Amino acid sequence: MITRMSTLFLRTLREDPAEAEVPSHKLLVRAGYIRRVAPGGFTWLPLGLAVLRNIENVVREEMNAIGAQEIQFPALLPREPYEATGRWTEYGPNVFRLKDRKGADFLLGPTHEELFALTVKGEFSSYRDYPVMLYQVQSKYRDEARPRAGLLRGREFVMKDSYSFDLDQAGLDRSYRLHRDAYQRIFERLGLSYVIVAATSGAMGGSASEEFLADSATGEDTYVRSTTSGYAANVEAVSTPAGEEKPVDGLPPAQVHYTPDTPTIETLVDFLNAQAELDRSVTAADTLKNVMVKVRRPGEQDWQLLAVGVPGDRDVDMKRLEASLEPAEVAVLEEADFERHAFLVKGYIGPKALQDNGVRLLVDPRIVTGTAWVTGADKPDHHVVDLVCGRDFVPDGTIEAAEVREGDPAPDGSGPLVAARGIEIGHIFQLGTKYTDAFEVDALGADGKPARITMGSYGIGISRLIAAIAEQHHDELGLVWPREVAPADVHMVLAGKDDSIAEAAERLAAELDGAGVRVILDDRTASPGVKFADAELVGVPSIVVVGKGLQKGMVEIKDRATGERTEVPVEEAVGHVRALTGR
Amino acid sequence: MITRMSTLFLRTLREDPAEAEVPSHKLLVRAGYIRRVAPGGFTWLPLGLAVLRNIENVVREEMNAIGAQEIQFPALLPREPYEATGRWTEYGPNVFRLKDRKGADFLLGPTHEELFALTVKGEFSSYRDYPVMLYQVQSKYRDEARPRAGLLRGREFVMKDSYSFDLDQAGLDRSYRLHRDAYQRIFERLGLSYVIVAATSGAMGGSASEEFLADSATGEDTYVRSTTSGYAANVEAVSTPAGEEKPVDGLPPAQVHYTPDTPTIETLVDFLNAQAELDRSVTAADTLKNVMVKVRRPGEQDWQLLAVGVPGDRDVDMKRLEASLEPAEVAVLEEADFERHAFLVKGYIGPKALQDNGVRLLVDPRIVTGTAWVTGADKPDHHVVDLVCGRDFVPDGTIEAAEVREGDPAPDGSGPLVAARGIEIGHIFQLGTKYTDAFEVDALGADGKPARITMGSYGIGISRLIAAIAEQHHDELGLVWPREVAPADVHMVLAGKDDSIAEAAERLAAELDGAGVRVILDDRTASPGVKFADAELVGVPSIVVVGKGLQKGMVEIKDRATGERTEVPVEEAVGHVRALTGR
Repeated sequence: MITRMSTLFLRTLREDPAEAEVPSHKLLVRAGYIRRVAPGGFTWLPLGLAVLRNIENVVREEMNAIGAQEIQFPALLPREPYEATGRWTEYGPNVFRLKDRKGADFLLGPTHEELFALTVKGEFSSYRDYPVMLYQVQSKYRDEARPRAGLLRGREFVMKDSYSFDLDQAGLDRSYRLHRDAYQRIFERLGLSYVIVAATSGAMGGSASEEFLADSATGEDTYVRSTTSGYAANVEAVSTPAGEEKPVDGLPPAQVHYTPDTPTIETLVDFLNAQAELDRSVTAADTLKNVMVKVRRPGEQDWQLLAVGVPGDRDVDMKRLEASLEPAEVAVLEEADFERHAFLVKGYIGPKALQDNGVRLLVDPRIVTGTAWVTGADKPDHHVVDLVCGRDFVPDGTIEAAEVREGDPAPDGSGPLVAARGIEIGHIFQLGTKYTDAFEVDALGADGKPARITMGSYGIGISRLIAAIAEQHHDELGLVWPREVAPADVHMVLAGKDDSIAEAAERLAAELDGAGVRVILDDRTASPGVKFADAELVGVPSIVVVGKGLQKGMVEIKDRATGERTEVPVEEAVGHVRALTGR
Repeated sequence: MITRMSTLFLRTLREDPAEAEVPSHKLLVRAGYIRRVAPGGFTWLPLGLAVLRNIENVVREEMNAIGAQEIQFPALLPREPYEATGRWTEYGPNVFRLKDRKGADFLLGPTHEELFALTVKGEFSSYRDYPVMLYQVQSKYRDEARPRAGLLRGREFVMKDSYSFDLDQAGLDRSYRLHRDAYQRIFERLGLSYVIVAATSGAMGGSASEEFLADSATGEDTYVRSTTSGYAANVEAVSTPAGEEKPVDGLPPAQVHYTPDTPTIETLVDFLNAQAELDRSVTAADTLKNVMVKVRRPGEQDWQLLAVGVPGDRDVDMKRLEASLEPAEVAVLEEADFERHAFLVKGYIGPKALQDNGVRLLVDPRIVTGTAWVTGADKPDHHVVDLVCGRDFVPDGTIEAAEVREGDPAPDGSGPLVAARGIEIGHIFQLGTKYTDAFEVDALGADGKPARITMGSYGIGISRLIAAIAEQHHDELGLVWPREVAPADVHMVLAGKDDSIAEAAERLAAELDGAGVRVILDDRTASPGVKFADAELVGVPSIVVVGKGLQKGMVEIKDRATGERTEVPVEEAVGHVRALTGR
């Protein structure tokens, strides 16, 4: 295929668009791949659509290779299936909802677990039918509060979502592994540097879950990894190694101290150390901070109080707390909540008042039997010292809520964690029976008994991938596409006004086209400088210059990535380019 | 590609689905191509998706061949551009509307004229940039009042919509013709029998417009055609030849007659003839029926009265009336309207009261100067005879509103019209400047002056095409796909339990696959009868049976369309099938 710049619907921009903050967004707009239509909604111009289709095809090939079958659902979906699983409510404002002319409720599909489960139930009934893996490539919709960074967080975006249906956990493990391997092949073919991190399953339900994160400083996802082992995890999924339990016998008794004007950890530690109240100095890590929140389960009206106990040197990470409590909602207490519950003495809350008043207390895993803490004494200006867990108070359980820091120990014992940022490009889940329970998806076994089907769900953000690839593959001049992704193999610049140059370029383009090489031919009347700049900006892997060198029978082939230039006799150019492109 | 029935996500049904009324809907569901998810919303199962992709590719090839470039817009679109052209209001309840979490208005795109015009304006500025033709293949949304007949009238459906942008009418004529020719090639490749009919442009605005209708008794569109000339038109677009004007001099004067209990044309004609009131007998065609409606222009609050005068032997065709008055709304009068306007004497309304009270009267083109009519005298039980147009009343204009009947004269004078039904599969419009005026889309001319761009819009209902093809290509056993559309080239039935049969079938399938032939291989353990029935139902063009004949070294090749069976030596089967498939 020959794409002519003289007629291509493409106008490059010399200036970065005002609203763009990250390199991929700037370059994809400047190079004429996408245009913004609405917040988080973009139009694919011809080159952008070519890149999108290339990526879709890589994804399709690898999905077909593991035996997954492509189908396609509507994007406009009825409420009922989502009502049945509770997600109509759980999604909250993140889903676009609408009514038809008769007042029936619909949503724009954010992900299709319900529909796939129902469809498999509709078609299959016997154990002989299973396993099956199905997928679709489709525009998805989420009403993001803050669409940002161009294709990185849109409200309408292209996703590949697939779903596995197995008779048992061993089957699910196999389907999960097939997807995991296919995803690795996909991201490698697309030239992405990425990491697989342990993840939480969030609103999807289910158990095992991993994210694929493309390395990128502009990524929204923070993850931590061990520098010595392969351990890597989304911050929400990091598990804190439990503290070491110790006998409580012989520990000093708890004592209440008068600690005036110490409503914060900092003022408390300063006061205790300055006054030499204790026989030892204390740090924030010796204090127990009880953070009050309220929690509401899906579909319920009432909020329940919850206390979260963490070592005083750490903040509660709301995203980790939310992930731990999902699908329940979490909110911080308002002034009115404190007024309603007089036993909550702000700045001086301790385990005793909580437990006396039936408030659940969940604590960080470091807070274990035999550890002694400085904490609130439930009256203004008083704290209690040497309050021992397992003796003076018994938490209702543990919770992952404290912030994770670089230097924290890796859960696998491999040493300290380091933090990095990435772009979520894939996510795989073992859902288990959450959805098949909701719709009673069973297979009649060989023994004549029904067995509940177990499900996996696997997503790749296809339009986001384009941004992730652009983040990893660009320089100060423009985009630098990996070959499988690029909108063409060769960008031919016709540099000079001689008819002989135009003729040679046209002939070469036709020969390359005949050999299956995808050519962009810059046949415009613009100056060579404009054409070179556009070629660098557009980012096709090989740039072929047909210009002055032609007098000596030579054309120049430039590698967009390395900048390396090679002079090649014009009659060898086709062979040379075919070797580069593998076509 | 080899698709194995043993693992294909496909379950055929022996019974027609209860909700299906037309053959395409019944068969596409029974053969496992589609499943219903919501009213007018369908899931594409693997075979359905394969057919959809085949058709999309034919459409893309022909669009690319005329130089149109593919881009893609979001489906979720902001209100503002549609507000600017008035279509936010004009679409009424036919468009799906929604709000985002911030309360901003959005719609699900029914068609994208506004966005294309804005995008071209954003990229292009000079006359050198034009002409350009752009298209997309996309899911579209319309909140149909009565989604029906499966894919024939859905609420979410796949469309190819394209748009041309030209500097002048000659350019638009050329773009229109290019599309018209491309559409003919597309429909021919897809094996469709169709007709091109003159059409009205409806809510799209603009002037010239034609529809492509696939011949089908199940079609929703009635059209008429001349049996001798090439004339064919949508009923809404038929123009009535004007009556012959005659001098009014010497015509008898108008006379009011007492015609008790004659509020209908039938009772009136019976009365006049029975009573021999006149010196001649009259027929319904001699009477003038004044039908009252009310009309409201887009964006206005108030309704205006309108009288539509038609010969009494014809009804007003509301669809024709609506098309004539588009984009205004039309409604029939309610009892309250009559009460409010006492001069409207139901059953006895005549031109005089209308004109005395400032009500517009638009008449059928047959009602011209010098024609004399029997019509209402504006008081109960009275009619006026010999009321002469141009003498006793002067209409405010003509309107196409009377029903069109078989036998009516063709507007081109070629004789009587006959009526037929079809499925609208394509529609092409010369829009002119409706949208470019709204957004001031100009090109700076060679003379430095801006010129307004003129636009065309062209649509193909891709998912509806599948139903139209199925309507034309099926028999009592199932679907009978044309080759370019079929989900595979060959449906191989493995008939028999001998290992040698399975081995021969597998070998043949592999060889065909190697030759680029798309194979469905029925390798299930089901009985031959079940497999044969499924093969006929699925409708792939060639059915290859590997069974008992293998003992004599033969396989059977059956032509699905003709039913013709050919015995072929197994070693010649590949060559034979390749000849059939052209691969």
